[in-house]
Parts: sequence; structure tokens; C-alpha cells
Amino acid sequence: MIDPVILKGFRDSMPQEEIPKRKITSILEKGFQSYGFVPIDTPVLEYSSVLLGKGGGETDKQVFHFEDNGGREVAMRFDLTVPFARFMAAHYSELALPFKRYHINKVWRGEKPQKGRYREFIQCDFDIVGVDNVQADFEILSMMHHSFSLMGVNGYTFHISHRGLFNTFLEKEGIADKSIDILRAVDKLMKIGKDSVREILIETIGDEKKADKVLEYITAGGSSFLETLSVLETLSGGSSEGSERLRAIYALLSEVGIADSFVLDPSITRGLDYYTGIVYETFLDALPSLGSVCSGGRYNNLASLYTKETLPGVGSSIGLDRLIAGLEELKSPILQDSSSSDVLIIYRPEELARAEKTAYELRRKGKRVDVYLEPNHKAKRVFDYAGKNNIPYSISFKDDEIVLKNHATRESRVFSSVSEAAEGIEA
Amino acid sequence: MIDPVILKGFRDSMPQEEIPKRKITSILEKGFQSYGFVPIDTPVLEYSSVLLGKGGGETDKQVFHFEDNGGREVAMRFDLTVPFARFMAAHYSELALPFKRYHINKVWRGEKPQKGRYREFIQCDFDIVGVDNVQADFEILSMMHHSFSLMGVNGYTFHISHRGLFNTFLEKEGIADKSIDILRAVDKLMKIGKDSVREILIETIGDEKKADKVLEYITAGGSSFLETLSVLETLSGGSSEGSERLRAIYALLSEVGIADSFVLDPSITRGLDYYTGIVYETFLDALPSLGSVCSGGRYNNLASLYTKETLPGVGSSIGLDRLIAGLEELKSPILQDSSSSDVLIIYRPEELARAEKTAYELRRKGKRVDVYLEPNHKAKRVFDYAGKNNIPYSISFKDDEIVLKNHATRESRVFSSVSEAAEGIEA
Repeated sequence: MIDPVILKGFRDSMPQEEIPKRKITSILEKGFQSYGFVPIDTPVLEYSSVLLGKGGGETDKQVFHFEDNGGREVAMRFDLTVPFARFMAAHYSELALPFKRYHINKVWRGEKPQKGRYREFIQCDFDIVGVDNVQADFEILSMMHHSFSLMGVNGYTFHISHRGLFNTFLEKEGIADKSIDILRAVDKLMKIGKDSVREILIETIGDEKKADKVLEYITAGGSSFLETLSVLETLSGGSSEGSERLRAIYALLSEVGIADSFVLDPSITRGLDYYTGIVYETFLDALPSLGSVCSGGRYNNLASLYTKETLPGVGSSIGLDRLIAGLEELKSPILQDSSSSDVLIIYRPEELARAEKTAYELRRKGKRVDVYLEPNHKAKRVFDYAGKNNIPYSISFKDDEIVLKNHATRESRVFSSVSEAAEGIEA
Repeated sequence: MIDPVILKGFRDSMPQEEIPKRKITSILEKGFQSYGFVPIDTPVLEYSSVLLGKGGGETDKQVFHFEDNGGREVAMRFDLTVPFARFMAAHYSELALPFKRYHINKVWRGEKPQKGRYREFIQCDFDIVGVDNVQADFEILSMMHHSFSLMGVNGYTFHISHRGLFNTFLEKEGIADKSIDILRAVDKLMKIGKDSVREILIETIGDEKKADKVLEYITAGGSSFLETLSVLETLSGGSSEGSERLRAIYALLSEVGIADSFVLDPSITRGLDYYTGIVYETFLDALPSLGSVCSGGRYNNLASLYTKETLPGVGSSIGLDRLIAGLEELKSPILQDSSSSDVLIIYRPEELARAEKTAYELRRKGKRVDVYLEPNHKAKRVFDYAGKNNIPYSISFKDDEIVLKNHATRESRVFSSVSEAAEGIEA
């Protein structure tokens, strides 16, 4: 006998987890599709040299890689960004640019498993590639807003900022050469607090006054988006390309009436060197400690590792596991319903044909119908089954009539036809 | 610069492939859900010993397996059946049996790549585990019928047979000890023809008369399901458990009015030793040469490798790639529509806010709207973009009015409000 055990850091997805996960994924897809985004997929296995580039060291250890039977060095994808860069380099000439894609699928990392951290998890990425303009930036933000509203999340705020504007400020202060270290320090603001960041900045820049200027910039806040923007403009030496882009984005957000969900937050920088324009993070208002559930920004060259073609873009990634954890904590209605069916049909052996005919008719009316398949219809087992599968109704037969029972209220109603009973089932 | 190349036997899924693939998957899911089936997922990586059992040899070479960074022998799943057996052994006590699950996801096999055969492909499996009775057999068949009708496939036939009945026949003939070799020979009937199968049978059984009897059984056919069943009953020595099960299934298929799509075909045996009850294959009437697009059967012990608990079940697998290839050949309407959006909005730079407001309103009305993001609105580029994305309509503005153009008919209609324009867009 083989022990049916699974690997550390991996897990089975049980129906009560898989049902809400699929529901959220399909809502997100609907949101993406209503903005004209299309799905793609890429192979799970690729050449190690393609996925890892020249890099190595730290990343290598976290990547599942091996030599296949043909002697090729292959690796399992560890994110969806690198495969997308490779994909765009391979296919940009056959695609109609700008290209708007989403990609929702698993990635693997050999990290030390921790609470809530797994070696196999789902990423959800979406990008607009091929243009650098205000409408593309706006469309990404507007789509994020639309997706979160479709999920029925109550209260979410998009914190946005502009990396180019921050660079303009650093140049004005004459400390642009230290930008990477400064970014890394600023990125820690939420975690370690203002005082600790100040200390690191002083050490990095070697000038207390300039460190305080940086701190002033990243903590600047007015009573509105536009007021904060004015402060940042002043600090960075007046109107610039970055500040004008932010102003134009805000004008569009206002025009369509969704500006309230967006905050200009100069402390958002996203650690990576990769970003060049707007950057953003998304927080659930009721759970700020959860961290950002949707982050990204604008970059000016997606696929430089694989092609000379310059591909600017703007993109975002939703942390699906984190988002689901947040929605669970907020008891989101989407996650509450993990019912396998709308109604369970219970019958005596001699009623089997009637049960199947009733099921068939209800299914044609769009109901999700479970015919209880265990011949031993002991009440306790049947209701245990209905309970574990969260089935809200059951149907049984009494002479010519149909008895519809609501499991929550324990009320029964009697109908003389399947059509009438169908009306009594609230999906 | 790194060459953006992918591994032999792997492929990118482009939007025009991924859109229909997702559409078919979501139709299938809807079908499964209307029968009370629930989704699960399992890890892509498992212990090699768990996935490969004691087996080895031929299978081993086709499986991607390696030693991970922790020194564990791991393998990528090569089907969804073995992980499901492991899953049931690990979880049966916490699940409410009978358990009805579906699982749609990728599997990997290091086979020699051929036309239409890849090393990474999607499987779609569904099973009812925990009971062995006529209603479970019927529900699987009924669900298959429902799913194929939802896909809008014109003409499909389910060929069913019963492995237990065939065994009863072999026992009566006194050749049950050679059943594995006989099954293997019979399974080749479609491929190599009656004469060649006869030769193999004679060699296997060592008795020309008995070989002809087997041939008579597997090619038996009456003018109806029940007539064929009578012939098989006579050949196998009269009414038996297997023949009565078939009769009861047929009675239910007739009761709900779908019996016409089912043929009793004793040549169907499914090579594997694993099956013990009904077995079935599904053919598209217009494309018999495509082979079966949905096959399976009843087994009496799913997880014997991992647990002493006896778990009988009935299940099926859809060959998604093959099914899609068939639907493509039949020019199925489902595959024709790979549009990314319902409508493309085209605008002059000064109309940007109006374009975004119009898009926002149309999206709230459920339309999929693409705002053309390239500032250079040259007609040729715009229509190339609409063409590559199969977008059927475009909207542009003329003074206060909205011009809706149907790309197929080249007709334009003028509307004075977004709501009116929305009505003009047929999704």
C-alpha cells in the first residue's frame, strides 16, 4: 500500500475551496473581457536559459528545474511575467498592437513553506503592451476598479503614484544616482515606519537635509488628489511629463465618475527597477494589514532580454490567494456560497424514473440538480450529504405532488408540477 | 539576447485558440454543475512513488520526473486518474459519498511529439465515486448527453457496452482466463478490421470455433438497443447482472427521452483491465474517423493502490484537444466566434474623454468594449486591429451623434444616445 501523501508546500484544492476560487476567477475574466482583454497561456515548462536569463544565484534555488529525458535543461515557470516577455518577443509581429492580454494560471517556487505560502500558487496578470499614453494607463486602472466592483468587495482604494515623477524629484535634488537604494528604503515605509526609513535614507544619501526632503516627498498628502499633486510638482521643480500624466489620468477618472476610489500616494514606489511610469497598489479598506491585493505599473521595455523591439506597457498582478484570504476574513457573500447544487432530489427505489425525469426537466430550466445516488436513503445520511454540499433545497415526492423543502427555514411547500416547483427554488 | 524559443512538443496558446478553449471548458463546467458535480484540483508535482506506484518501465520514460532541491523524487502528473485515486484515498472520510467531481487541467507526457500530439495537454475528467448502481451509470451518460447538446454539436452517438456482460460470455465459452489478451485483440477491431482480429483471436484462443463466437459477440447488432441486448443475452447464456443493468439504464434513457443517442455496441471494450461494468465511447456522427472524444466506464476499485477502502465508481474523460480539432473541422459556431470585444471605439485625440465615458456606459450595459489605444488612428491600422481581434462593430463620433458601423455589412447607423447605440450592437 502506498501512503497517499502529498509534497510539503503543496495542497489539494477541495470543492469548498475550488468553487469560490473558480467563481472569483470567472468574475475577473468577465471584467477583463468587458475591457477587450484576451486570454493566453504559455507552457509550464520552458528552457531554463529562457526563464532564468543570465541571472542565477538566489532565484535559481527557488526554481524547480531539471534535465529532461532529452538532455535539455528545463524549468517550471515561477511567474507569468517572464513567460509573457518571451511570448511577446516571439509573437509581437503576428499580433495587432496594442495587445491586451490576461493570464491566470499556476506558478511554482521552491520557497520555504510558511503559513499561507505555498510552493504552487495561482497568479493573475493583465497587461496592455505596445503603447505609452494616458488612455492605456486609465484603462488599466478603470478595469481594476470595474473588477473589484464586480466582486462585490465593499470598500477598496487604489493608491497610485508615478515613478517618473519621483525620478524628476531625485534629479532635482541631485541624488538620482542613488535611486535604487532610495527606492528600496522607501518601499519599507509601511513595514518599518518613518523613523527607521529616515535613518536608512540618511545613511544612503549621506545628507540629513536631503533625506528629510525625500521623506517630505513620500509622505506628502493634500486633502485631494489634485492638491497632493501640486505639492509633488512643487517638490520636483514644477510641472513635468510625470505630473501631467497623473493630471490627465485623474481627469478621465473624474469624467467617468470613479475618481473617489483613487488616492495619490507618493509612498508607493514598488521596489523593482523595472517600472518607469505610474505604479499602484490596491488595499481593502477594512483590511489594510492584508497588504496590496493588486499591484503593478508602467514599464518602458518588457522584453529587452529577448528582442530589440521596444515594447512599452502597463500591467498588473492580482494576488489571488491573498485576495481570497481577505474576502474570507470579510465574510464576502461570494465565498459563502459553495453549494454544489440548487436542489437535491430524494426518492424511494420505485420512484427512480420519476426522480430522473424531474431532474432532467429542472436542469433544462437551468437549475443545478443533484439526484441522491445512494440507494440507502436514511434521513441522517441524506441531510449530512446535503449539508456537506451546502445544497439549499430538496425535492421528494408524495403521490402526484412534489414536496420542496427549504433546508435553511425547514419549511416545505407542495407543488403539483415541476415547473411550479422550479419557480419555488431561488438560485 | 536570448532566443525566445519554446521546447519541442510544447506550444503557446494564442488568444484565437485560448478563447474557444475557455468557451468550451466553461460550457462543459456548466453541464457538470447542472448535475451536481463539483470541481477539485490537485498538485502538478507529486512524489514519484505516489504517481508511478510500483510500475516503471514504459511509463517511467514518458513521465517528467526529477529530484527536487530537498532531495525528493518528484514527478509531474501524466493523467488526472492517478491523482484522483490518491485524492480519494486521502480524503474519502471527510467527503460526503457519493462524491461527484470534475477536474479540468493540464497533464504532461514526454512522448515523441507528433502532428496533433503534444507533451503538455489538457484533460477533462469526471467521476461518480462511492456507489455502484443504475442511477449513477445513468447520470454519467445523461450528463455526457447534456454537455454535448450544450456545445451545439450536431450529431453525436454514445456507443455503450458492458464489460461484466462480456466476461459472463467469456466464462460461458470457457475462455475467461484469456480475457486480457482477447480484450486487447477486440480493441483493435476499428483499426485493423474483422479479418485481422479473427487471426489474432484464433492464435490467442487456439480454437477457431470459439474465436468466431467472440467475433459473433462483438459484431452482434440488432435493429435496436433492446434487440442487440437480446442477442448478447443469448450468446452469454441468458439474463445476467450485466444485461439487467444495461436494460435498466436503457429504460431510464427512454423515460427522459434521450435514448436515441445511445447505441449498444459490443465491440466497445476499452482495452484497460480496470473496467468492470459499463464502458462507452463517443463519436461525432459527421467525423467517425476522429475516434472517440469522450470515453470511460465503471470500475469497482478506484484507489486500491493507496487504501483498503473499496471505492467503486463510474467516470469519463473528454479528449479536449481532439474534440476541439473535430469542432474546428465541422466549423462549429462555438469556435467561429473568437472576438475579443463586441465593439471598438475610435476617436480623435480631443474626443478621448467622450470615448472613455461611452465605453464605461456600454460596459455597464454588459457590452465588451475595446477603446482603441493607439493615438495614431490611421484607418488601415484601426481596421487591421479590428480584423485581427474579430471585433464586429466600431463606434465613432460625429458632432453630438454616435456612428455605429457593422464591419461585416459595412453599414453605418447613427444614434443620438449611448443607450440607443447599445441596442444596435448584437452580441
